Amino acid sequence: MQEPREPYLLTPGPLTTSLATKIAMLRDWGSWDSDFNDLTGDVCRRLLAVAHAGTTHVCVPLQGSGTYAVEAALATLLPWDSKTLVLTNGAYGQRVARTLKYLGRDFTALDTGDYLPPSPTQVDEMLAADPAISHVALVHCETSSGILNPLEAIAKIVRLQDRRLFVDAMSSFGALPVDARELPFDGLVSSANKCFEGVPGFGFALLRREALEGCADNAHSLSLDLYDQWDYMNRTGQWRFTPPTHAVAAFASALDQHAAEGGAPGRLARYAHNKTVLVEGMRAMGFLTLLDDRWMSPIIVTFHAPGHPNYDFKTFYQSIKRQGFIIYPGKLTRVDSFRIGCIGQLYEEQMRGALSAVRAALDEMAIPDGAPRLEDLTKPIF
Amino acid sequence: MQEPREPYLLTPGPLTTSLATKIAMLRDWGSWDSDFNDLTGDVCRRLLAVAHAGTTHVCVPLQGSGTYAVEAALATLLPWDSKTLVLTNGAYGQRVARTLKYLGRDFTALDTGDYLPPSPTQVDEMLAADPAISHVALVHCETSSGILNPLEAIAKIVRLQDRRLFVDAMSSFGALPVDARELPFDGLVSSANKCFEGVPGFGFALLRREALEGCADNAHSLSLDLYDQWDYMNRTGQWRFTPPTHAVAAFASALDQHAAEGGAPGRLARYAHNKTVLVEGMRAMGFLTLLDDRWMSPIIVTFHAPGHPNYDFKTFYQSIKRQGFIIYPGKLTRVDSFRIGCIGQLYEEQMRGALSAVRAALDEMAIPDGAPRLEDLTKPIF
Repeated sequence: MQEPREPYLLTPGPLTTSLATKIAMLRDWGSWDSDFNDLTGDVCRRLLAVAHAGTTHVCVPLQGSGTYAVEAALATLLPWDSKTLVLTNGAYGQRVARTLKYLGRDFTALDTGDYLPPSPTQVDEMLAADPAISHVALVHCETSSGILNPLEAIAKIVRLQDRRLFVDAMSSFGALPVDARELPFDGLVSSANKCFEGVPGFGFALLRREALEGCADNAHSLSLDLYDQWDYMNRTGQWRFTPPTHAVAAFASALDQHAAEGGAPGRLARYAHNKTVLVEGMRAMGFLTLLDDRWMSPIIVTFHAPGHPNYDFKTFYQSIKRQGFIIYPGKLTRVDSFRIGCIGQLYEEQMRGALSAVRAALDEMAIPDGAPRLEDLTKPIF
Repeated sequence: MQEPREPYLLTPGPLTTSLATKIAMLRDWGSWDSDFNDLTGDVCRRLLAVAHAGTTHVCVPLQGSGTYAVEAALATLLPWDSKTLVLTNGAYGQRVARTLKYLGRDFTALDTGDYLPPSPTQVDEMLAADPAISHVALVHCETSSGILNPLEAIAKIVRLQDRRLFVDAMSSFGALPVDARELPFDGLVSSANKCFEGVPGFGFALLRREALEGCADNAHSLSLDLYDQWDYMNRTGQWRFTPPTHAVAAFASALDQHAAEGGAPGRLARYAHNKTVLVEGMRAMGFLTLLDDRWMSPIIVTFHAPGHPNYDFKTFYQSIKRQGFIIYPGKLTRVDSFRIGCIGQLYEEQMRGALSAVRAALDEMAIPDGAPRLEDLTKPIF
């Protein structure tokens, strides 16, 4: 370790996990042994319960990053003659489209740029105009900008138009409400190292059982065939291929802590408070958020870079890191920005610490106090 | 934990790792941060050095299990008009063939059953007879039986016939000799949780640079596109998608310990001694090994199940587990067997402990002392 102490990760994951979660990795599990199978089964049941999906859906975990689980769920659920409407407003929506290109599945995209939400009305019109569209794919929280996309409104349209819904809930599930009884998704994907605060190593998909049952021959890949993974797990209790045993054990501990915090509502309350402290503090220093409050998620917040000529992201980042906090670069195509995450083992104390570090970094860069620190923005902000 | 203490894993991985390796997971790393990029770069350089491949090959790590890395390397390296000769004598060779079916790449298999090695002469004849065969795929150590396949002899034929070699070295690399200066492979795949004694979470491929450079459009999958992974890592130092940061940190520690043990030769010496102690002790109790000594690997050993009517694998397994050791079931299609691994943090003390546990388990099952404990074998043994 090069730092005086381990820095807090104010990033969208991997994130700062609790010591209890990490300590759960101090055991080696036999991947064939019934103790580990029990652990896997328990994790899957609890994830279904969080989404109130136990009677309608199955949970299929998958080794790898969250992107693997997205690709696997799309490849498994989408028939070869399907056509998907992909709603994109950032890197993760674009990644869904890129994945569909690899998969050879037809799609059309509604791209609303870097940070505008898709309009339910427009989605309604597109579905009405093109009966060939069988599926709609949406990223719930697009961490490129931090926007919380209007999942419920889109889901309602998709249901009324009798199409099938796919949700990339990577950065939202575990904190933001997801209720399968009201949200009619065929597939919803997330990963261990987001709002459940596990360590990275696997993702998981909640798949509507009756949809999955017809998907034996869809997948393009052995490793990413979620039907095969589900079928094998059903028969044996085991993962098909070597599971990330330590990450699964850490996740089981993280789920205990998630429940003890009051489940998704409890976690959301903490993240929302983190976000409020962060945004108020940053605005008090003169920073502007990319998004209007109504679109801002409690997951990660994008700030415009200061317009001052002394500003340099690398210097800013390193100064804040030396003070014990790791922030995240921007991911917008047209706006110079940076991001600060609110998820993981972060509490008001850490958010205030990060704010102090930001202030000190500005001072080090001799960016003088007082507004406007920031460029006079001519870009569209909503 | 349900056991009085954590059992030793006498399995082919995940395996028993050192405490130092696990303790390296007690830190959260920012996956975008330069500290973590340095860690990844260092791991890749050291893996190339173990194979003496630093000037000819690149190392591309990949999230997921070893099977993912095999699929990804095949998908990336094999042109769409390639034809692969797959040498199979167990589940992992068959998995290569199954993967090629998913990938839509032409192949032919030389299947020598459950535990016979491929004959270099026969491979030579098959290559001579079919000029369309562009690649040969071999599993170095086939853990289904524990056989060490004749890699060097096959590689020599492949080179003389001017074809390209792909090696699944999952269970061998890090202990058995692999020298890229003499072994002309285009791709060699292994994973973190085998002979390097890391925890599961990622695999890696050593790919001949000049072969990889022409492979930009081969892969069927975004997640498993090793060209894209390599290209992105080259440009940014980062993994394309969230890496298993804790598993990578554990692996860096495991590599330190690997070097301190004398690298692959040192590790091989320990595993070979483990195997000798195990096989001698088991034979002294009347057990028969599936394989003749010349084919037996120091990785995992297959034993015939006792032929006694009181024998039941589940009872045998549970008794040994209660005594602190986890063994592995058989994976042969025609012979009742079980397997005991020699890799991981196992030393003579643990091997002797396992032997005592086997003896006690037999006593519990009232299988009397003395030969023949075992069925009178009519199956072919070589």
